[in-house]
Amino acid sequence: MTSLSRRLTAEALGTGLLVATVVGSGIMAERLTGDTAVALLGNTLPTGAILFVLITLLAPLSGAHFNPAVTLVAAMQGAMSARTAGLYAVVQVAGGVAGTVLAHLMFETAPVVAGVQARTGGAQWLSEGVATFGLVATILLGSRVRPPAVPALVAAYIMAAYWFTASTSFANPAVTIARSLTDTFSGIRPEDVPAFVVAQCAGAVIALGLVRWLLPNEKPA
Amino acid sequence: MTSLSRRLTAEALGTGLLVATVVGSGIMAERLTGDTAVALLGNTLPTGAILFVLITLLAPLSGAHFNPAVTLVAAMQGAMSARTAGLYAVVQVAGGVAGTVLAHLMFETAPVVAGVQARTGGAQWLSEGVATFGLVATILLGSRVRPPAVPALVAAYIMAAYWFTASTSFANPAVTIARSLTDTFSGIRPEDVPAFVVAQCAGAVIALGLVRWLLPNEKPA
Amino acid sequence: MTSLSRRLTAEALGTGLLVATVVGSGIMAERLTGDTAVALLGNTLPTGAILFVLITLLAPLSGAHFNPAVTLVAAMQGAMSARTAGLYAVVQVAGGVAGTVLAHLMFETAPVVAGVQARTGGAQWLSEGVATFGLVATILLGSRVRPPAVPALVAAYIMAAYWFTASTSFANPAVTIARSLTDTFSGIRPEDVPAFVVAQCAGAVIALGLVRWLLPNEKPA
Amino acid sequence: MTSLSRRLTAEALGTGLLVATVVGSGIMAERLTGDTAVALLGNTLPTGAILFVLITLLAPLSGAHFNPAVTLVAAMQGAMSARTAGLYAVVQVAGGVAGTVLAHLMFETAPVVAGVQARTGGAQWLSEGVATFGLVATILLGSRVRPPAVPALVAAYIMAAYWFTASTSFANPAVTIARSLTDTFSGIRPEDVPAFVVAQCAGAVIALGLVRWLLPNEKPA
Repeated sequence: MTSLSRRLTAEALGTGLLVATVVGSGIMAERLTGDTAVALLGNTLPTGAILFVLITLLAPLSGAHFNPAVTLVAAMQGAMSARTAGLYAVVQVAGGVAGTVLAHLMFETAPVVAGVQARTGGAQWLSEGVATFGLVATILLGSRVRPPAVPALVAAYIMAAYWFTASTSFANPAVTIARSLTDTFSGIRPEDVPAFVVAQCAGAVIALGLVRWLLPNEKPA
Repeated sequence: MTSLSRRLTAEALGTGLLVATVVGSGIMAERLTGDTAVALLGNTLPTGAILFVLITLLAPLSGAHFNPAVTLVAAMQGAMSARTAGLYAVVQVAGGVAGTVLAHLMFETAPVVAGVQARTGGAQWLSEGVATFGLVATILLGSRVRPPAVPALVAAYIMAAYWFTASTSFANPAVTIARSLTDTFSGIRPEDVPAFVVAQCAGAVIALGLVRWLLPNEKPA
Repeated sequence: MTSLSRRLTAEALGTGLLVATVVGSGIMAERLTGDTAVALLGNTLPTGAILFVLITLLAPLSGAHFNPAVTLVAAMQGAMSARTAGLYAVVQVAGGVAGTVLAHLMFETAPVVAGVQARTGGAQWLSEGVATFGLVATILLGSRVRPPAVPALVAAYIMAAYWFTASTSFANPAVTIARSLTDTFSGIRPEDVPAFVVAQCAGAVIALGLVRWLLPNEKPA
Repeated sequence: MTSLSRRLTAEALGTGLLVATVVGSGIMAERLTGDTAVALLGNTLPTGAILFVLITLLAPLSGAHFNPAVTLVAAMQGAMSARTAGLYAVVQVAGGVAGTVLAHLMFETAPVVAGVQARTGGAQWLSEGVATFGLVATILLGSRVRPPAVPALVAAYIMAAYWFTASTSFANPAVTIARSLTDTFSGIRPEDVPAFVVAQCAGAVIALGLVRWLLPNEKPA
């Protein structure tokens, strides 16, 4: 069993590098092109690639959640205690914020700036609910039917969800908070964060219910 | 054996998320760029990615057809009864239509709008015949020579076919019907649907014949 | 042992679909964008994807050469007779030409048109020699150190070579001949074909020599 | 055990083809488009693809370092002698320079031209430190938790790092030196090389320390 300090380090490191990739590639993309679809491609590929890497490398240490909505579902399944889940969420948020700061330092902007991109309203919340439903269903089904493929499945799912949801699929409360601290391509206004988090958790819980019905005889992974 | 209700749920869910991705990423792409090739890239990558995910996750439940032409071939091989095949086709179409509605709700357009994109004539029908021939040949050969790779093979095949056929490769009667209910990037006029479906079924049946000749001593998977 | 007629069918079918993808995606790309790098991306991804599919599916039948330079190396290794190699080359060229015709019919152009794109001179020939050297080295080394990865390795190699060689990496005499019959994005002037074929065969033979020195104790696969 | 001459040949060949791909695809991209983000996509995909190919093929021969910072870490772990590590670094640099020359010959420019792109300052050095930290952590963790995935992991990591670091992630002293000899898309001024190399080695050593703490009971691979 990996020690709790190593597990929390892995969660912080993974969430931090994930956010640094999302924010950093967004800055790189918007600096290099005026075509927003090209910029989104330049945001999508690095995000998918780093998810594949981080989940493959860190899942043996911490489970590679990097996402409080995923940790919530794990706790609901009894796979971890409420206390451990809470600690996971804390270091995920802290790691994510550090990731935003790191991206800003690499691209020579102020370390933290409140996001200015409005992302609110029913269509956006529906998008976040769908996005997180799909992400959690992918993780739960994938970890039962083909565990070694989970890193590639999550990466592929998020690359799709960047494009098929209207919100570009944040699908992660820690990442959403971290992205509220940048005014660049991937940012979101701080006041829009709470509704996103609610929608994400709702989508996650619905996914858990669906998977339990689809695979009734299976044990949680 | 998975119960029929779970199998049908898996087919509806999979076809729905596939169509939501095709239609949703098309809307995202056409809103973000004026370069149609960039838009098609922004449609191609999410479609390939979600196919890899959905087939990997749902094949153990329902076979992950998501496509009446594939179900037709399965029934012709004796792998499922005509009644089950008919039910599959019904839920595939229903799921696909729901996918279009979901994409429209996420992107704040009317739930259902008749397609306006003309896609007709011999070259388009040839394209659909070739596209579906290739898709069914990929599934039939892949499920015999390397079954675990089928999700990646189908995803890769469709990403290629989006570009090498003049119709961008619908290759699926349920998806074609669902795409006749959107007037966005991925739409098709309702009056153009029947000929597409005929061409798709013809391509599928020809693929079955070819594979039977190429692998005569093999049992269907 | 697969019968010779089935092996030749597999070679013709594979080369044909490969060329249809190269030529068809080139036409699609040049019709949709004025940005040539975007067009090359729209040519690169489908080519890589279809190579992964075709080699995975057809290698168990024919070896999935689809390329007279690869067949030449196989014959030099004693893996097939000169007569069989000659038949392979004939059906590869015939299949490739049929692929060009199929792409033209899908995109409603004349079935066969002489290429107009000049591709000649030392830098182009060097590019083709390097491209084919790398392709054959990839196949020979890959089939020894990790055989199941060969389809993905060839696909990845060609996607790289489309960009790092000045000729966009034809690397295949049958494909070169077939591409001399289109005046679209992927075409080449017929008078430039012979020097390309010479450079390709030279690169292939050099790769065979290098691999024999690098892996002296290994048997050909 | 592969002979030292074969190991050094593999390192020189691999580094050479890697640099030829980085430099060549950069030239191809900047010639074909005025959109710098499209050009970076046209540089990213070939680099990732060739890394997957070269590491898969040559790792059984030499370990497929292609990078003095990786060789340094291997020597610090006791996996190779200081003398062998020094020879590795020499042939990596020589192979890299040959790769630049090869790219220039294929694209008909002067064989060697001093780079003109300024890449200096704290944000660039931080970027290189982060980029190499991530690369070495990927290799060290990957070779312990899932060795067969290392080629794909390195390829995916570098594709992400091209976009999320402000320097586009050189992350390799030999490649940095080789890229100082081109004045094209991927170039760097010779006077900016030393600080890049220092930052890269610092990132590599920090990664080694982190991985030793995260996986204390594991032996080096």
